[in-house]
Formats: sequence, structure tokens, C-alpha cells
Amino acid sequence: MAKVSLEQIQAPADLRQLDMRELRDITSQLREFVLRSVSQTGGHLSSNLGTVELTSALHYVFETPHDRIVWDVGHQSYAHKILTGRREQMAGLRQFGGISGFPKRSESEYDDFGTAHSSTSISAVLGMAVASRNAGIKRQHIAVIGDGAMTAGMAFEALNNAGVTPGVNVLVILNDNDMSISPPVGALNRYLARLMSGQFYARAKNVGKAVLQHVPPVLDLARKFEGHAKGILSPATLFEELGFNYVGPIDGHDLDALVPTLQNLRELGGLQFLHVVTRKGQGYKLAEADPVLYHGPGKFDPDVGIVKSSEPQKISFTQVFGQWLCDMAAHDERLYGITPAMREGSGMVEFEQRFPTRYFDVGIAEQHAVTFAAGLACEGQKPVVAIYSTFLQRGYDQLIHDVALQNLDVTFALDRAGLVGADGATHAGNYDIAFLRCVPNMVIATPSDEQETRCLLSTCYQHPGPAAVRYPRGNGVGKPVQPNLASVELGKAKVVRMGKAIALLAFGPILYEAAKVAEKFNLTLIDMRFVKPLDTGLLQELAQTHMGFVTLEEAALMGGAGSAVLEYFSAADITVPVLTLGYPDEFIDHGDQKRLAANLGLVAEGIERSITERFSDLLEA
Amino acid sequence: MAKVSLEQIQAPADLRQLDMRELRDITSQLREFVLRSVSQTGGHLSSNLGTVELTSALHYVFETPHDRIVWDVGHQSYAHKILTGRREQMAGLRQFGGISGFPKRSESEYDDFGTAHSSTSISAVLGMAVASRNAGIKRQHIAVIGDGAMTAGMAFEALNNAGVTPGVNVLVILNDNDMSISPPVGALNRYLARLMSGQFYARAKNVGKAVLQHVPPVLDLARKFEGHAKGILSPATLFEELGFNYVGPIDGHDLDALVPTLQNLRELGGLQFLHVVTRKGQGYKLAEADPVLYHGPGKFDPDVGIVKSSEPQKISFTQVFGQWLCDMAAHDERLYGITPAMREGSGMVEFEQRFPTRYFDVGIAEQHAVTFAAGLACEGQKPVVAIYSTFLQRGYDQLIHDVALQNLDVTFALDRAGLVGADGATHAGNYDIAFLRCVPNMVIATPSDEQETRCLLSTCYQHPGPAAVRYPRGNGVGKPVQPNLASVELGKAKVVRMGKAIALLAFGPILYEAAKVAEKFNLTLIDMRFVKPLDTGLLQELAQTHMGFVTLEEAALMGGAGSAVLEYFSAADITVPVLTLGYPDEFIDHGDQKRLAANLGLVAEGIERSITERFSDLLEA
Repeated sequence: MAKVSLEQIQAPADLRQLDMRELRDITSQLREFVLRSVSQTGGHLSSNLGTVELTSALHYVFETPHDRIVWDVGHQSYAHKILTGRREQMAGLRQFGGISGFPKRSESEYDDFGTAHSSTSISAVLGMAVASRNAGIKRQHIAVIGDGAMTAGMAFEALNNAGVTPGVNVLVILNDNDMSISPPVGALNRYLARLMSGQFYARAKNVGKAVLQHVPPVLDLARKFEGHAKGILSPATLFEELGFNYVGPIDGHDLDALVPTLQNLRELGGLQFLHVVTRKGQGYKLAEADPVLYHGPGKFDPDVGIVKSSEPQKISFTQVFGQWLCDMAAHDERLYGITPAMREGSGMVEFEQRFPTRYFDVGIAEQHAVTFAAGLACEGQKPVVAIYSTFLQRGYDQLIHDVALQNLDVTFALDRAGLVGADGATHAGNYDIAFLRCVPNMVIATPSDEQETRCLLSTCYQHPGPAAVRYPRGNGVGKPVQPNLASVELGKAKVVRMGKAIALLAFGPILYEAAKVAEKFNLTLIDMRFVKPLDTGLLQELAQTHMGFVTLEEAALMGGAGSAVLEYFSAADITVPVLTLGYPDEFIDHGDQKRLAANLGLVAEGIERSITERFSDLLEA
Repeated sequence: MAKVSLEQIQAPADLRQLDMRELRDITSQLREFVLRSVSQTGGHLSSNLGTVELTSALHYVFETPHDRIVWDVGHQSYAHKILTGRREQMAGLRQFGGISGFPKRSESEYDDFGTAHSSTSISAVLGMAVASRNAGIKRQHIAVIGDGAMTAGMAFEALNNAGVTPGVNVLVILNDNDMSISPPVGALNRYLARLMSGQFYARAKNVGKAVLQHVPPVLDLARKFEGHAKGILSPATLFEELGFNYVGPIDGHDLDALVPTLQNLRELGGLQFLHVVTRKGQGYKLAEADPVLYHGPGKFDPDVGIVKSSEPQKISFTQVFGQWLCDMAAHDERLYGITPAMREGSGMVEFEQRFPTRYFDVGIAEQHAVTFAAGLACEGQKPVVAIYSTFLQRGYDQLIHDVALQNLDVTFALDRAGLVGADGATHAGNYDIAFLRCVPNMVIATPSDEQETRCLLSTCYQHPGPAAVRYPRGNGVGKPVQPNLASVELGKAKVVRMGKAIALLAFGPILYEAAKVAEKFNLTLIDMRFVKPLDTGLLQELAQTHMGFVTLEEAALMGGAGSAVLEYFSAADITVPVLTLGYPDEFIDHGDQKRLAANLGLVAEGIERSITERFSDLLEA
């Protein structure tokens, strides 16, 4: 009998023609393909190696795309992409013009819901399941969610709502690999760890039977007792209390366990909860040994593994923050560092080691992170919430209602501000200036380089109220960072050069692109430093000697820093032409950050072109 | 022995001098005072009558303000205010210049954390508890949270984090009255109801003991089993699994149960969870019988009860929405109505009755509400999320990441946009224009009156993408509402009158104030209808014939509708003076809506004054 090859699987329907032996074989090929493919493009590796069998089994058992599958976070969807007709496109994964690293509705009919931010899957499938119920369509709706994502309040909200929604088919598959990006935290993870212990499970099961035999034979009592007795038979009362039928834990790498279990669950329908245990990096020894290193690598040789570059690398903005955090913590014992499950990404590894009692990874829980910080600030402490710009959207109400309204001393370190490259539109930190600027009491700083980042972090930290410092993913121009903790005056801009006719007002690292144009045409260049408070005194002065202004920012133009300048001129009754440069009003797909910036006209050439078009009459040749 | 009177209690320290008999007496007086006081000022009644004993017991047992108490939502804090030196100020409750209807840090050293939005209390006290732990201060930190608030994901995030935080004193008091503003929903409430049944509890306890005697005497096994056996003794595995010691349920109106229990918990320290059962409206028969009617009444005679006014009242914007929702649902079976626990407040009582399978109260779960809607939209349905502007802040990320990014057809009906009156700054819907405008694909409509609200709801609903319609609390000018479901063109403004020199651009009901000024000075008046897309064609035309513009909105000026106009003129290289009127960059306290608007210069007189100051040269006498 001829061996089936992965190339023959053009769609899940092909998979469903296979027998179990062939399915096992295809799954092996799939793992090898994922490894080779990611090693050439970069991307999420550990999580995808961990879900190969689960993905195969799901498409084997369920009638996709008729049945719906939502991949929570979605970075584990590579095997899904490969099995659903995108094998060849994997070579362009996460690259400009190529397929996304996350499920995307516009990309495939098999991508039922676009994901990337955590813990949305159960809400989404519940919505789908209600629609199917009301339309009388028999269909299964599956959320595949990791143990880290399960700690977010949103997942709990969805379980809580699902538990009282009659007549829906919802299968929640908890992919328990005991490792979100940072190590797992929280009481739920501890609880899951207890469930996961197969030994305990087997024994409890037996104990449960023994116990039940001795229950006093009072019928009424026995019935009421049953609910909790079940908690002994299968120690999963938490999910059962919320209305789900708990099944598991089962080995997520064993197709002989997965396939029949999923077949059974498919027949059962209703609210089902399957606990699957997987290992990140499964099948690739190096990733199994260090799943964090192989979480999201760049290109590497899979036969050799990741080799750390010996070339000196530019320090990233994240590293500047991490170093500043340690230095300021050593200087001020009121400093607390808080991260919602992004210890590595936010540069807090050293801080945790050096200041363990002031380090808090609160789990994927942005809402809680912000209000927890507010509580600390009420007691005279000075918390620093390190959070990606895009994830602060999750704690927005808490920032307004708990921090800013009470004018509490919380500093927000907003990493990944602006476009983020390969992660694409879902992770873009484009809106922070607009959504923070409208909030009273907020200070917003936009450092232009490494040293400015450190300096404005110190400045915002010293400010006794809420403040945010936004800095982008990756590296800046390489400005050396001074080891001190000096501040600058809040709300004061820095004149970089005085020129003629036109003043360029830069908010953030785009300053260095603007500088090339300013030099060329002898224009005035300002490092604005703060969006809020805005240095209106300087603007007023400049308006007396300049005939045009250009604002530059790496953020959405609508409501952004340029608008702040427009608002000031309008309020001050200063009528002067202003050209605002920044992101247009559209979602911008993944791709190399520099390339995207160039496409948007936000590098020197584009800036020059825009200024030339608008202010040709004002420019000296 | 002289009877103690409430007037003698100037601070909790006075309370702690009393014996139990006196405490009971004071508590009776306190209930009577709350009833009389609220009947004269209006405010939250049912919830405050329900927490009189709990409040007295807490201040009696704990050393406030050294010990911290955070009142979740905080609308149940009247007894707390009375006992902490604000008895006389209760006459000015929720009125301009008077004390707030919520705890407020600037108001009293006993108000440890400002609350109003739900489910923040556990996060806040955990932050405080960590600060105390690290400072070596012996202190108790108490969160008093209702069963409704407990369903929000944020509360779960906090419990999950607390459960693994060593060395903190956190006492969570679940005030279980089985009724949030709308009836309780969700699996958690069902679970709590089971816990609450005293009968079940007592029996299970006995059963537990019987069961334990029959456990096989294997020591290792028994130890492992203990955790779950505890779940039988006290059927509260859910909270115990998260790391808390569960105590209860106890009668929250019985001081003889409350006081010793709290005393014990105070000695225990650590992570404690007390389940208290109370009744909303307790002690006032009319409120007990109809706690919803007495949830937040205006003035009434407590001896008579609330008398429904027989005078014809103007229809509120909320009612316009509620009627439209039913009419559109009758017309289009793809319509679903979703509320995060605000059935009454959002005007959805009739909708629920008529369309029960398309009505979803998802609990206090704004994040889930939005993504649940996104799931429905993926299946070709047309969900309408009815949500207060201020609460949409809780679902902001979901709106961006799950709805707008996927360009899904979800309509947001934003009630309580702008200042909300007695509820004050915490509930103000001031930021929605700014935080929505920066999001690509969003449509934002600002109807000016009742008929426009209906019409723009129809328009946004018909638009096959995400859209928000914002309308204020209360009544408009009383414009009759047409029964049809007609739409207007998306993004097109309406010319109300053509005048000279200056064009007034109104976004929302402020149109009618602007109209008075436009008439007086023969100015052009535009009902802009949409903030996004903005009618730039009309603006371009108007700029050719007008020498000044005035924008008017009831929203934060920073990033608001006025900024949208400034951005357009800047982008189109049209240099024209624009005066932007709206809310200044500050939090605005509670008070009568009209009075606040007048203070901010957003009624006709103020508008005229601003225009006269800015454009005196352009005005005809």
C-alpha cells in the first residue's frame, strides 16, 4: 500500500479519507513540515509542534468548515493552515504580502474567527453556536484554548454565560501545556496541574467509587449529593460547576486517545469541556528542552538549533526599559513591576530575579493588572505596569476609572507602540495616543531614542500621577544610554535645531527620519517629547517665526499627536497651515517594520515628498 | 441605661464603644435614616437597605480606617458614609456640590478606593495587601462584592492572582442578594444559589463526615483526597480551588452571626472568603417586594411608596432605542439584542419579552458581550450591543480586535453618552468619540433628537459593518418619532439653516442649543449626524462661503468631533478659524445635567458668549 504524503492533503476532506495508520503517518510528516517551515521563516514554533496531533484529529473527526473551530490566540494554527490548503504559502508566513501568523477570516473559509489577542475563543464560538441553534443548523463549535489564556477574565465570562445558554453545541478544548509565554501563574494553573496528575486522577476515580458505595441510602440526599460526588469521580468541579461536562485529562499527542474521544464528544453535543495535555515543542528535542527559546524564533538550522549571535547587537527599547526598571527599583523601594504574562517580552527577567517581592506577573489579566497597580498606589507605592500598547486596550476602563480618575501614581511602560512587524494588525500599537490623550490627568511621553526612553521613564516615574511612556518594538538609532536616573521638565519639548520657515514637530523615533529632511532644507526640528502636556509655549513662539508646521508620529492620525497640535492652534486662535504625518485610518497588515514605514511615507524620502508637495512655496532649494 | 442615638456616632470608633444590644439599636436607626434620607434625595435604596447590618458589623469589628474596606460598585456605601462622619451631608447626596453617591478617596479617609464600575474591588485590595505585606504592616483588606459583580471576568482574574500571592490578608465578602440590577444570570449565580440553600449545606456537611469515615485508610491517598473531601464538607470547591478559605453562607442581617464570624476571620488572616446572604430592600416592605422599582428611585414619600406620575412624560432616548429595537427585530429576524446586565437601563424589557431567543443578558461581562456579538455576526446575524458609553470602555479591545478589525456587522447602541448627572465622573460617557474615532472601519453617529436617534439607529444597523450610535441619558427636545425604519445616507450631514459668515457644526442634541444662537445671528447651522465618516464634501463647500466654523459636541474635546473637523481642514489645506466647543480636559463631578452643561458653556448663552468672544468681527449685530 502506497504511503500517503502530506502533499496529497489539499483540504481536511482528504484527511478524512485516511485510516488511523495513515493519519498517524501524515501527522508525523506534518510535524516535520512545521519544523522545517518555521526554521526558514521564523514564527511560533513550540506551540505549533505541541498541537500537531490535536489539529489533525480535529480536522479528521469534525466536518470542517461546516463545523467551526476557533483557535484561541491563534499562534498555534500553523498545522491548521497546512491542512487547509496553505501548505505552499507557509514559505511566506508573516512576511509582507504573505499569509498571516494567525487565523484570518479573509484568508480561508477554514479560519472561522481571527484571533491573536488571548481568550476570545469561547465568546466567539458561543455566538456562533447561538446562531446555529436559532437557525436549526446542526453544527459543532469548538474553541481550542491554552491554559494561559484560560486565566483571563474574558474566558471565565464566556464559560459563565455558556453554562446557562440552552441548546448550544460548544466544545471547549483546554490545551494544557502548562506554559504560556511566561511561566504559568495563578490559582487556576495550580488547579489544572492537580487535575493533570494522571496518578491522582486514577486514584481519585477509584476512591470515588468506593466512597459512593458507602453513601447512606437516602434517595433525596443521594441525588443532591451526586453533583459533588462527581467532583470526586472526575475531579473537575470547577468546570462542571459552570455547567460543562468535563472529560479528561487525555494525552494530546496520542491520536488513539484523541480521535475516539473527539468522536464521542461530537455525538454528545451540548456543553463539553475536554482537557488535553500537550507538550510545547513536542517531537523536537531542542524545543522540548527550552520551549521559551523556541517560542518565537527567527530563522535557524533545525539540525543545529538556535545559535546565539556573537555579533554585538543594538540594545532594544525593551532592554532599555528592563535596565531602567532595575536601576530605579534599586534606587526607590516603592517601585513595583507588574506584567500581564509578558515577563520576557517586556524585559523583566532580571527585575524578577533581583526584586522578587516587587515583581508581579498577574497572568493574562490586563484589567486586573491595572487596578492591582491602583491599589498599590493607594498605599503610597509607585507601580510600573509594563504592557504592550495593544494589550492596554484590555485595561482601558481600569486606566480611566481606577487610575486616572483618582489621579493615582501609576506609570505605564507601553512597549510595541506603533506597527509591530510580523505580528500584524492585531498587535499594532497604533491607537494609544488617541485613546489616552482624551483621558484627564494622563501624561503621555514619546521618547525618540534609547537615552530619551530612559530619561522620560524617569521623568514620568517621578511625576506623582498617571503617565504613559510609549516606545516601539525593536531598536532605535543606537543612542548610548546614560546610567543616571535624571529627569527632564514635564511637558517641555527639546529644540533639536532651529531652521527657517517650517517647523517639524516629531513625536517619537521618527525624529531621526525627520532630521534628514530638516538638515536638507534647513528646517526647524523639535523633539516634542510629550504629547500631553503639550509644549504649547514653544508652539506659540514657533508660530511667530514659522509659516508652516509638520507633525510626525507613528500612531493613528485620528485623534493623535498631530491633532493635539491642531487643537492647540485652534484654541489659541493661531491660523497656520499644519501637515500631519502618521498612520492612515486603516488596519495595516504584517510585514517588515521598515518596509511598512516606507510604504506609509514615514521615512525620510516619504516625509520629504509630503513636505515638498504641501509646502513647496516655503522651501529653500 | 440611656438609648444610644445615631447622632452620637461621629466615626466608627464611636461604634466600637457599643455593646451588641446598642449595636443592634444603632443599626435599626441607621436603616431608618437611610430610608428617610434616600426618599428625600433619590439614590440607590434597595442595595443600601440590604447592607446596613453588614456595614455596621464591619466597622464594629475592624479598625477602620487602618483596616481597608473597598465597596465594589459602591452604590451600597450609604450606611458606610453615615457611620464615617457624613450623616449630615447625606441631604446633598449626588447633588451638585454635595457628596458623591459612590465612595470617593477625596471625600473621606474611610473611602479607601473610589468605585462605581463593577468588579474592581478584589484587584484593588490585593494591591493594598501586597503593599502592607511588603511594608510589614498588620492590616486587613476587605472587598465587599455582590454576586452580580462576581460574574465579571475581572473579579475572577483577581481571585486567580490572589490565590497564589503569599502572605497577604485579603477578605472577600460576597454579598449575595441574588439580584444585580437585572436578574442574575450565568452559571456562577446558579452555583451560588445552590450554595445558598442552607438545607443543602447542612446535609452535605453531615454527609461529608459520613463519607470521610469510609475512606480507605491509606495515608497518602487520604492526604491527596483531603482537598476534595473538603469540597463535600463545605460545598464551595470553586472558591477553595482558587486558594481561598470559604466560610458561609451566613445571614447578612443577623448581627449575632456577622460579628463573631468577622471577628474570627480577622484573627485568621490570609485569604478568606465569606459568603453573606442579604436581601435587597431589607426592612422596607415595599422595596423587599419590588427591589427593581426601588433600586434607584427619585424622591418619594416612604409612608406611601413610589407613586407613578400620571403626567405624560417625554420619551427618553433609552425608550426610543427600546422601541426601535423591537420594531427592527420584528422586521429582521437576524437582529439579536445583547446587554451586559443592563436590561432595564438600556430599555430592553419589552424586547426580552417579545424576542426571548434573540435576547442575551450576558451578565456584567462587557468583554464577552462584544466578542459574543462578533461570533454571531460571523454567522450572518446582526447583533446590536446595547451598552452605556462608559461601560464600552470595558470592551474596547474586543471592539477593535474582534469587531472592527474583521469589519463585522455589529451595531453599538451607546446610551448615557456625555455627562450623566447624579452618577458623576465615574459614569460619564465623555470619551467614546475619541476612543472610537481612531479605530478603522468604525462608523460613529451622533443623533440630535428622538427621531434622529431612531433614524440613525436604522442607518447604522443597515450599514454592513461596525457602527456606534451615541445618545445621552434622559430626554431630548421631544421630537415626535416616526414609526418607520427609514435610513439616511451614511456620512451625510443635514443642513438645518443656511446663514452667513459662520457655520455651526453640531454633533448631537446640542444642536438645539446652537440653533438659538444661529437664529439670533443668522448663522449657518448643520446637524452633522456623523462624526465618522465625516461629511467632508459639505465642509469643503461651506469653507468657500464661511469665514469661521464652530463645532459643538457633548464629549471630550481632546480627540473629539471638533478634532475630526480640524483634521479634515488640515488635510485639505483649508486654513480657516475653527472654534471647538465641548468638554474640557478634566473629570467633571456629579450634578444636574443641565446645570453642568451651563457651567461648561454648552447651552445657548454660553455658546453665544464663546462665539461672540472669538468671532466678534464676523457677527452681524
